[in-house]
Amino acid sequence: MNERQTLKINNLGHLEIGGVDAKALKEQYGTPLYVMDQAYIEDMCKIYADTLKKEYGDGMIAYASKAFSCLEIYRIINKMGIGADSVSAGEMFTAKTAGFPMEKICLHGNNKSSFELEYAVQNNVGYIVLDSYTEASELNEICKKYNKVQKVLIRVNPGIEAHTHHFVQTAKVDSKFGYSIGSGEAEKVVCFVKKQENLDLVGLHCHIGSQIFEYKSFELAVEKMTDFYKKLSDLYGYSFDVINIGGGFGVWYADGDAKKSCNEYAEYIKIISGALKRCVAEKSLKKPYLILEPGRSIVGEAGVTLYTAGRTKEIKGIKNYIAIDGGMFDNPRYALYQAKYSVVSALNMNAKKSNKYTIAGKCCESGDIIAEDVMLPEIKEGDLIAVLSTGAYNYSMSSNYNRNLIPPVVMVKDGESRYIVKPQTFEDLIRNDV
Amino acid sequence: MNERQTLKINNLGHLEIGGVDAKALKEQYGTPLYVMDQAYIEDMCKIYADTLKKEYGDGMIAYASKAFSCLEIYRIINKMGIGADSVSAGEMFTAKTAGFPMEKICLHGNNKSSFELEYAVQNNVGYIVLDSYTEASELNEICKKYNKVQKVLIRVNPGIEAHTHHFVQTAKVDSKFGYSIGSGEAEKVVCFVKKQENLDLVGLHCHIGSQIFEYKSFELAVEKMTDFYKKLSDLYGYSFDVINIGGGFGVWYADGDAKKSCNEYAEYIKIISGALKRCVAEKSLKKPYLILEPGRSIVGEAGVTLYTAGRTKEIKGIKNYIAIDGGMFDNPRYALYQAKYSVVSALNMNAKKSNKYTIAGKCCESGDIIAEDVMLPEIKEGDLIAVLSTGAYNYSMSSNYNRNLIPPVVMVKDGESRYIVKPQTFEDLIRNDV
Repeated sequence: MNERQTLKINNLGHLEIGGVDAKALKEQYGTPLYVMDQAYIEDMCKIYADTLKKEYGDGMIAYASKAFSCLEIYRIINKMGIGADSVSAGEMFTAKTAGFPMEKICLHGNNKSSFELEYAVQNNVGYIVLDSYTEASELNEICKKYNKVQKVLIRVNPGIEAHTHHFVQTAKVDSKFGYSIGSGEAEKVVCFVKKQENLDLVGLHCHIGSQIFEYKSFELAVEKMTDFYKKLSDLYGYSFDVINIGGGFGVWYADGDAKKSCNEYAEYIKIISGALKRCVAEKSLKKPYLILEPGRSIVGEAGVTLYTAGRTKEIKGIKNYIAIDGGMFDNPRYALYQAKYSVVSALNMNAKKSNKYTIAGKCCESGDIIAEDVMLPEIKEGDLIAVLSTGAYNYSMSSNYNRNLIPPVVMVKDGESRYIVKPQTFEDLIRNDV
Repeated sequence: MNERQTLKINNLGHLEIGGVDAKALKEQYGTPLYVMDQAYIEDMCKIYADTLKKEYGDGMIAYASKAFSCLEIYRIINKMGIGADSVSAGEMFTAKTAGFPMEKICLHGNNKSSFELEYAVQNNVGYIVLDSYTEASELNEICKKYNKVQKVLIRVNPGIEAHTHHFVQTAKVDSKFGYSIGSGEAEKVVCFVKKQENLDLVGLHCHIGSQIFEYKSFELAVEKMTDFYKKLSDLYGYSFDVINIGGGFGVWYADGDAKKSCNEYAEYIKIISGALKRCVAEKSLKKPYLILEPGRSIVGEAGVTLYTAGRTKEIKGIKNYIAIDGGMFDNPRYALYQAKYSVVSALNMNAKKSNKYTIAGKCCESGDIIAEDVMLPEIKEGDLIAVLSTGAYNYSMSSNYNRNLIPPVVMVKDGESRYIVKPQTFEDLIRNDV
């Protein structure tokens, strides 16, 4: 909790985020409320960018903006000098509207539409990461039409399936993404893309999974990718200027996850940088420009969601429910993945955690749970509840399920707060209704 | 497929919905596209309402609008003379804006906010289904302020947990909803609510689950609820004017689910009506007004989602992926519940289903799947794919995940089509951004 000074317990025993007391946030903005800690996001951008520069040299951190996307986040990451990973026309549009330099965007996606490809070319997106033959052909035609040559990478599968706390190696990867190195498919698609006149194949991309705590799996990914570079160099004389190792760095949500300071997150960058330097030297390859795409680890722990405790219901010997004024419409991750979160009594942070509660949302659905069997002090209706580490994949996955309104997002820094996404209104619910 | 004439294969071998060829829908509106069959919805409303009247007498079908909510659906169900079950201020607002008679609304929710309770009272909502002590007290105070007496029900648990194809009985129910009859909690809350001067406790509500195919579980719910009425009558002399048995009638999604014609769905109403008539007679109770709340079965099979097949990827011996231009942002039910759907090649309906495919969405997430290992004719990029039975909990659960736009909704009837929810625009994505 106190490892960084922007999320702490103040001398009133209240949760304080970016110098703002949670009580003041509730009073000013109401609940449910997404709160994002700007200093944390900026720290992470800076630490990642500095570490990459120091440990590796030429490269780019591209924030995986699907984790949390809105106009302001692109302004912040741009100010911090990093790039962005985008996965749709909607994300590219948001970045562009925020004045983000489009040449610092990597466009991903297993099924980019013609519109998305053309939008990317028109707006001079830096890199397009190809994920199929027909996409390559189509993009080549679009580039011809605009008389442009587009820098592209190809998504390949190095045969490492990494998950939280463990990883496996496999020759054939069952994934809708990429082409397997092990099966020979990746080599074929490289040769195919090389032939496209208006595509400049600058390198390859891989992404081995999400919430990975095992450093070794990233090292192994680098080894497999550079083995493949070496093979393509030996067989065809191909040489690549870029390598993109994706993201997936594991972040802390709750007990059981490794708790890291911002600086410790840099270890992921160090490991990958070190492995890549070593591998290119050993294999006598040209040292490529290194792109890394962390998303969750830049914004995840920066986020706190504030809720007000509502109705409580004790089912003796079974469960003790606290209902909150949010739920799966603002955080569907328990419903989707049984994700674990840390829950605190935001204005009673120093009290003994004597009671076991299940935090239920307000949706008319039994599965609408935020956290099961968490320890808290006694909670009464009206108490302020905070759920930690909600900065990634909460706002970005939110919906109007049950016609609940999506909570606004407030950015805090140095004791000040401001809306970065304003509250929805009922009118928004029927805006497109006929 | 051909059990009702509004969803059929036409003589071109195309899927036809409400008299409109799927090809024409794609050409006019593009994909992804939600298509809703008005005749089906109207049929279901009429069959349910007529069956209730014929088999039971006094009562109301209240459409559980969380299944699919927008202005037009409230207009249609109002025209068909049925009521609505609402679970939020947003749903009440939508109903009200559509001119829906608020006295025909049952308001539900385990954690209704003060705003929602006051909104319901101000707008003369017919019934509020209470789900906690403090909610009862708070509503009583609100009613005093407005000098009104509000008709209320209490949500109780009859101790039946029903799921698809099976059910269990248990004295203690682990649920954030309701109070258990078996544990004695329900009796306590009834006595508490009876004392509230501005609340008129007209009856009790239960809802035993979702996607229930086992008729017996509904009969049992009626027996348990009337046993409880009898007990309250004997002990306290209480008598109730209303009983609400909720919804949860199982609908067809894919092979393995019982396929029913619209008329066969009426069996649920018949069973409950018969059981209630028998139980009140046997127990010498006043015959109550019967409220039933089907949602999924009114709109579920009315919906078809049209997608265009995009990139295909065969991983030999493992999987054959077809990516579509939608995904978990328009239908999160596979990701949430591993729900099964029927997928068809909409312009090639009579072809032999010779190939096994997995239908993947376009989101940058491995879990973004719509259907796994479904049999289809050979699919090529650009082919029109239809997913059936998507009328419930698809549009209502949709999100802008990955900043994809929520598809529009088109209503079809008698060969005509019209938008009922217009397409989102990129501007909608940043409307509330600062």
